[in-house]
Amino acid sequence: MKVTLSALDTYETSFTPLVVIELAQDVKEETKEWLKNRIIAKKKDGGAQLLFRPLLNKHEKETLGSDNLYLVGASRVRLLLGAEALGLVKESVDGTMRTFTYSTRGSFRGFHDDNDDFLTMTECQFIVKHELENLRARDEKMIPGYPQAKLYPGKSLLRRLLTSGIVVQVFPLHDREALKKLEDSWYTRFSLHCQPIDRIRGYFGETVALYFGFLEYFTFALIPMAVIGLPYYLFVWEDYDKYVVFASFNLLWSTVILEVWKRSCADMTYRWGTLLMKRQFEEPRPGFHGVLGVNPVTGREEPLYPSYKRQLRIYLVSLPFVCLCLCLSLHIMMIYFDLEDWALRVHEESSTEWTGVLLYVPSVIYAIVIEIMNRLYRYAAEFLTAWENHRLESAYQNHLVLKVLVFNFLNCFASLFYIAFVLKDMKLLGQSLATLLITSQIINQIAESLLPYWLQKKHSVKVKRKVQALKVDIDATFYEQVVLEKEMSTYLGTFDDYLELFLQFGYVSLFSCVYPLAAAFAVLNNFTEVNSDALKMCRVFKRPFSEPSASIGVWQLAFETMSVIAVVTNCALIGMSPQVNAVFPDSKTELVLIVVVVEHVLLALKFILAFAIPDKPRHIQMKLARLEFESLEALKQQDLRDVTGSG
Amino acid sequence: MKVTLSALDTYETSFTPLVVIELAQDVKEETKEWLKNRIIAKKKDGGAQLLFRPLLNKHEKETLGSDNLYLVGASRVRLLLGAEALGLVKESVDGTMRTFTYSTRGSFRGFHDDNDDFLTMTECQFIVKHELENLRARDEKMIPGYPQAKLYPGKSLLRRLLTSGIVVQVFPLHDREALKKLEDSWYTRFSLHCQPIDRIRGYFGETVALYFGFLEYFTFALIPMAVIGLPYYLFVWEDYDKYVVFASFNLLWSTVILEVWKRSCADMTYRWGTLLMKRQFEEPRPGFHGVLGVNPVTGREEPLYPSYKRQLRIYLVSLPFVCLCLCLSLHIMMIYFDLEDWALRVHEESSTEWTGVLLYVPSVIYAIVIEIMNRLYRYAAEFLTAWENHRLESAYQNHLVLKVLVFNFLNCFASLFYIAFVLKDMKLLGQSLATLLITSQIINQIAESLLPYWLQKKHSVKVKRKVQALKVDIDATFYEQVVLEKEMSTYLGTFDDYLELFLQFGYVSLFSCVYPLAAAFAVLNNFTEVNSDALKMCRVFKRPFSEPSASIGVWQLAFETMSVIAVVTNCALIGMSPQVNAVFPDSKTELVLIVVVVEHVLLALKFILAFAIPDKPRHIQMKLARLEFESLEALKQQDLRDVTGSG
Repeated sequence: MKVTLSALDTYETSFTPLVVIELAQDVKEETKEWLKNRIIAKKKDGGAQLLFRPLLNKHEKETLGSDNLYLVGASRVRLLLGAEALGLVKESVDGTMRTFTYSTRGSFRGFHDDNDDFLTMTECQFIVKHELENLRARDEKMIPGYPQAKLYPGKSLLRRLLTSGIVVQVFPLHDREALKKLEDSWYTRFSLHCQPIDRIRGYFGETVALYFGFLEYFTFALIPMAVIGLPYYLFVWEDYDKYVVFASFNLLWSTVILEVWKRSCADMTYRWGTLLMKRQFEEPRPGFHGVLGVNPVTGREEPLYPSYKRQLRIYLVSLPFVCLCLCLSLHIMMIYFDLEDWALRVHEESSTEWTGVLLYVPSVIYAIVIEIMNRLYRYAAEFLTAWENHRLESAYQNHLVLKVLVFNFLNCFASLFYIAFVLKDMKLLGQSLATLLITSQIINQIAESLLPYWLQKKHSVKVKRKVQALKVDIDATFYEQVVLEKEMSTYLGTFDDYLELFLQFGYVSLFSCVYPLAAAFAVLNNFTEVNSDALKMCRVFKRPFSEPSASIGVWQLAFETMSVIAVVTNCALIGMSPQVNAVFPDSKTELVLIVVVVEHVLLALKFILAFAIPDKPRHIQMKLARLEFESLEALKQQDLRDVTGSG
Repeated sequence: MKVTLSALDTYETSFTPLVVIELAQDVKEETKEWLKNRIIAKKKDGGAQLLFRPLLNKHEKETLGSDNLYLVGASRVRLLLGAEALGLVKESVDGTMRTFTYSTRGSFRGFHDDNDDFLTMTECQFIVKHELENLRARDEKMIPGYPQAKLYPGKSLLRRLLTSGIVVQVFPLHDREALKKLEDSWYTRFSLHCQPIDRIRGYFGETVALYFGFLEYFTFALIPMAVIGLPYYLFVWEDYDKYVVFASFNLLWSTVILEVWKRSCADMTYRWGTLLMKRQFEEPRPGFHGVLGVNPVTGREEPLYPSYKRQLRIYLVSLPFVCLCLCLSLHIMMIYFDLEDWALRVHEESSTEWTGVLLYVPSVIYAIVIEIMNRLYRYAAEFLTAWENHRLESAYQNHLVLKVLVFNFLNCFASLFYIAFVLKDMKLLGQSLATLLITSQIINQIAESLLPYWLQKKHSVKVKRKVQALKVDIDATFYEQVVLEKEMSTYLGTFDDYLELFLQFGYVSLFSCVYPLAAAFAVLNNFTEVNSDALKMCRVFKRPFSEPSASIGVWQLAFETMSVIAVVTNCALIGMSPQVNAVFPDSKTELVLIVVVVEHVLLALKFILAFAIPDKPRHIQMKLARLEFESLEALKQQDLRDVTGSG
């Protein structure tokens, strides 16, 4: 039994609001009417065929006096058809994952015609977002009432509305009840069980769930390093052999954990269906601009921007700017060392308790300056990358990640490299490492979660008071929720969270043999980080739209690169250590040669390990092979039918 | 207009023989009859629906007295349907590459209903081979007349016939006329034009064409290195700076050429359609055996062999054996150095012209011994890899390549490493390198092409005489051709040819800064290698079945690995050279550190270069994106049709 799109009733009685659209305050009635009509119009008339109503009815509007919030929902069948259009992958009754189609809906696990749980609320919101974004201009030359907001056939209306400021924001609503349940099983009661990753995925989508999955995995993976590192610190083991054993273990271990992560990631994303989901054709990103032309791939009219101009901007502006910032960072590092010297001189000249404290002041100041510089640079990088005018969101993200990673890497680790390889002061290195690690972790926890949570809490009390002050006779709970969520800050993606983990991984692995306690600190931090990040997701930010993803993407590469660099630094540190130097009292050159050989062997081992451990577990490989085989067979059957059917 | 398979006439009047099947001498009539029936039976009756006849008619059989050769052909429509089943990709009228289907045949460039050139003869032979291999057992329990040749439903008949020795071989026929044309444009007239790669592909298939393409590309890519290396050798430039410049150029150049090759390879294989061709589901390789069970991927009955048993064989037998062989190789190397020492002593004690020649004898002997060991080891590796019982031909190939590469690498380069880094005798290194390179090139050219060509020529004269001696009144040209080709040796794939190039690349790149003339020798050798390999393909071997491939596969990785190792060795060599040592007279350690830093920077640069150069040229990327977009759009259209069509 198939259902046509045109058979759907756009005005169903049961309206579950999924997504909120906030318009600017002074939008013309004409525009509102047009937008409403486009959203509720039937698919065949070029509409989105969704449900749409203002947040407040006429009576409430008069009382509360604001009418720029609208709710979007969709009928059940519309959502199922949307799921098919998106190519969502679901588990079928026979246990395999298959692309959902409406006509075969009966063969999927958990599907009944009267069951509303088949699609999670997150999936429904993602579908609504996709449908809204795919609402395209037909013959309109501009947005009615706004002649400056130009349109051309095929342009996404929502993107134009957003860029011209008519729509302020579009965000999915929280589900208070589900959120409460999620929080209970996640972080409010402290216990040592694992996170409910599948539930997190159900509520926040795959990208967020993968981040929390990675955070948990990474924390547990660091425990062996922390445990092995502890006695080295406690008993001040500094024998030559124990030293080398620890470093070698760390280096190979970090390769193994990164490879094994790929496997468990494939396991998870297979279960979630995103491993099999086909990539949709990517639209130009919202900020992209250019001269109207014909896209050679799609054959459709859209803005084009010549690639050579982008290359010029990248190589003539962005690259020099990044280099300049790197130099500045190095310069500030040198100032830090001057300060450090000065503090040491003061301490030596008149050694009191106060000058003892003064010794730590430059490090703390430097750690704070680094954090500030990282944040400032981040804005500059975002501006520059947007100005480079990349057509695709993914290209934009890659260029941004590259810029930010290089700078943050240098900013955070340059001073450590300087201490290690120029000053060759291992004691200072351990001390600086500890200061940097601990300071940055504390700053992050405060700046990222606790401070926003506190602000949010304060704001929320204010809004509640305001709503209560109105003393209206209407049920304002839902109104209050929408207004509260509207004011919450927007979650900007997992970038900063991954970046934090990445830098932490650097602190742990780059100089692990000098400061074996780093892993233990990282583990401790991450146990609280899980909770503060969870708090942030649930209480501080607007609910984010889910983002299907099959892996942690470019971060896998970043972590692997870091673990390669770690081999180099650790070998160099061991080679420079007095313990190892004592073994080769006569021939420094021989020592260096041996260290270099060991380093190359370790690097080769790493690459062989990475090559030898399959990226996907065997059972996933088999399932993927089976799906591929089935589709090939189906194709053959179809060909045979085509050929014999009409001969 | 569609044609059903059943409408094809199996006995067409125009019979173009494509493939020869040679049966064993004493095959029972019953079996022959059964085989013939299965081959000519209609597709719907489980046959291959091909044309099949004995090489000799009754009259000729009586005269010539042999009847174990059969010819297989196919009607034109059958071939086109086979091309569709294989998923061949052809250029359509609008210039894009599309998967061929019979129903859309009119939209492909060069297709007319009365045109026989649309499929090349190679493609036709490949289709026939595919159809023969896909001829599967239905309810037969054994091959009629051979109770020991067991069958089970779905087993490929041809593979069982081959493994039980009933069919001796199956090979495609040469096309004398086309071969003559190809030879004329390829190698018989020496000139400096490029090879006719597209024609080679048309005659021998993609794998062979890619090898010759790579050989040519690689030769031209080596020319800059040869040209820059020449003055270093002629004017004995050994200044510090020139030295370093040469090595750095070589290292970056080798990365660039390997990356650019990927691009031109994608260019070629897009034009040939193999870049887009979907991988077919892989059958178990002929030698694979196991207990009959159900394949979890296909759900079909086939022999299964537990993975852990294979792993045990690999790690408990193959790996120790390979290590043993590596030790043996090192041991023989030590003997060589003893011999070398002895020769030097003799020369020093009584220096005559004869002892001067004697100095070169150990190297020559060693080079010959290396070649012999490589060949012996090759047999052992093939035996072991077959015994490991891999299910797929590709897994077998990968394990074989890995085994052979590791051994050959050590065997060929161990002595050079020993001289370079243990003896530290740069003069001897240059001398050994030259001897090894030149000896192995001469041996290869003789053993690979000239000797077989001479033997083949002798044999061919013998056969011709024998046929003429029969003095029969029939036209024996075609009979003579088949009998001659039947006796030719079988081309075993491009493995040995690539291996030779790989080792040559090692000689050129690993120690390039010690012997800058190596590249020039390699270029000279490759110019003749093209000709002798071409001779070998056209005259010495049976025509091989074509093998669609989209790249040079594992060899790309092997060459890239070699170029990484080359960075390490060259940096080490420069660090050890007296010229560079003279710059740092006081601090050896500082020198080593600088060398290590430079090495790491070069390695990082290599990886960045490899990352920054896209693997496919922009226009190919665009075309692939367009195809993907079209298929997504088609899917959407189909969904919409499905949904609205029957609502």
